[in-house]
Amino acid sequence: MAASKKSDKRSGDLREACIQEALAIVGKHGIQSLSLREVARRLGVSHQAPYKHFRSRDHILAEIVSRAYTAFAEHLEARPRSSDAHTDLEAMGRAYIEYALTHPLQYELMFGNAMPDPAQHPDMMKNARHAFALLQAGIRRLHRASARADAAERSDHDALFVWSVLHGACGIMHSQSLQSLGLPADLVESMMSAALERVSHALQAQLD
Amino acid sequence: MAASKKSDKRSGDLREACIQEALAIVGKHGIQSLSLREVARRLGVSHQAPYKHFRSRDHILAEIVSRAYTAFAEHLEARPRSSDAHTDLEAMGRAYIEYALTHPLQYELMFGNAMPDPAQHPDMMKNARHAFALLQAGIRRLHRASARADAAERSDHDALFVWSVLHGACGIMHSQSLQSLGLPADLVESMMSAALERVSHALQAQLD
Repeated sequence: MAASKKSDKRSGDLREACIQEALAIVGKHGIQSLSLREVARRLGVSHQAPYKHFRSRDHILAEIVSRAYTAFAEHLEARPRSSDAHTDLEAMGRAYIEYALTHPLQYELMFGNAMPDPAQHPDMMKNARHAFALLQAGIRRLHRASARADAAERSDHDALFVWSVLHGACGIMHSQSLQSLGLPADLVESMMSAALERVSHALQAQLD
Repeated sequence: MAASKKSDKRSGDLREACIQEALAIVGKHGIQSLSLREVARRLGVSHQAPYKHFRSRDHILAEIVSRAYTAFAEHLEARPRSSDAHTDLEAMGRAYIEYALTHPLQYELMFGNAMPDPAQHPDMMKNARHAFALLQAGIRRLHRASARADAAERSDHDALFVWSVLHGACGIMHSQSLQSLGLPADLVESMMSAALERVSHALQAQLD
């Protein structure tokens, strides 16, 4: 029994070590460099060892993408809460931007285009849906008092719109394309706040 | 004279052939695969030949990015024109989306993050600025009647906001992340129109 427990622990350690190593490879050399063979090489274990825990390179990638979604959702949930639905949603927007700017690798894993096929990795999909559901819930709170018959559809479009603004602004913010425009520094510094203000006006118009 | 003209033509042909080959390499194998050596190899010319026209790999990359900006700006300019500033701006938004969806490689070259250093490539910067200036002009038309003292600053923030929505929505539209949410098809199909409607409300609020 004791030997088996020890072996379980070692096995769990190897799984976790593989995940950490995979994240390190992706962070340093890009997603295209990730392979189970490279994970094994860096850990100094046999080529076959990671296969005890991951059926393929995509399965370990799905695990690190899943974890990014979980950490992202936790960051959104940790925002300062407000009883006012507008204020709360703005806080969620700021938390989104903060996560994107401080965790560029995780952000790229979630929203870049090197994710493994979602249909093959239900846990990853579940975590992605959970993160989006937080945004949907924040927006449905806004619409709660609305008498419009199409409030549900409007709120889902609002969620995609808010996501678009945040995703686009975070992408532009750090792009060479923005740099190449040579815009005034104070304009660029205030672009996120200005964008959130405009989002708020757009959402308000959906309620009137 | 005749020999010199012929040589000029051949030289111009080689320059153009290098550019076309560079675009083909980037399109097929990604920006990281671009090198003047590979361009030469594929054209069957000496390793030194492309250097007669391009000082470095970044110089040929700057040329293809520049051309993407020019083609993009021409596409925006070719939109159906309207005497109504709101309608005209919406047409520009649709033209932006159309270009992004039909020219993913050029879009990635302009707004992805593998552009050569803008400061080293003034022509590329000039073309990037020209494309952004079209958006700025469209928005300034909206603000023309505004009596607000801060109309100029507001319109530049509006331009960054509109760019954010369009860039974000185009990115999300084709992302695996959106697929992984399993949203209803009609919601996804109408997301662009819904986003443009919200942009219009947000811009209107800046004028009131």
